[in-house]
Amino acid sequence: MASADDIRDTVRRYVEAVGSGTAADIVALYREDATVEDPVGSEPHVGHAAIRKFYDVIEPLERSSELFTVRVAGDSAAFSFRIVTRFGEQSFTLDPIDVMTFDENGLISSMRAFWSPDDMVTG
Amino acid sequence: MASADDIRDTVRRYVEAVGSGTAADIVALYREDATVEDPVGSEPHVGHAAIRKFYDVIEPLERSSELFTVRVAGDSAAFSFRIVTRFGEQSFTLDPIDVMTFDENGLISSMRAFWSPDDMVTG
Repeated sequence: MASADDIRDTVRRYVEAVGSGTAADIVALYREDATVEDPVGSEPHVGHAAIRKFYDVIEPLERSSELFTVRVAGDSAAFSFRIVTRFGEQSFTLDPIDVMTFDENGLISSMRAFWSPDDMVTG
Repeated sequence: MASADDIRDTVRRYVEAVGSGTAADIVALYREDATVEDPVGSEPHVGHAAIRKFYDVIEPLERSSELFTVRVAGDSAAFSFRIVTRFGEQSFTLDPIDVMTFDENGLISSMRAFWSPDDMVTG
């Protein structure tokens, strides 16, 4: 099982990559057979190719991110963070809570993102 | 499926009951066949009798609670909150992130609590 420190490190790198990395940077944190359910209740993306396609959408956007709280339990973590996307004068701020499981190397095995469109704040 | 408002209402009542209610108050928010995994990675408590036994432990304690952030997605929610327990001069503060699923009546079907002993702050 990955250590709590390894898990915290992957979470920190994930939030950084979501805020300023490429889709490839993000996908490299996932296991090849990982699943991504974002938001919870939607059809999961399974495997690197599908996950890459999912994150390709945000790659060209002007973004920033901030990690708030991480809670590690066993091989899992829950964490709250902020992602801000900007289009010229307009910004979209979302503070999801994500839940992840990790393999023995600290790679993400599964991700589930808890948020709904109501949580999006425009400014 | 329960509405997002029903889900938020159950979460609010849960955190209130954990902070100042009886074990019976808390258990009443769960389905009869619900599961409680607290912390994540531990053996789940299954059904009202086992869940009641789990919350009986906190009933006699001097406690307070505060709900921070709730994120609803589909029939699920993730939320961060604080529970403070006091023994005379000493206090124990824990800020877990909990994940719950809900049935069509807004009762809790499952609860998983993300925290580790390292997250406990004594004062």
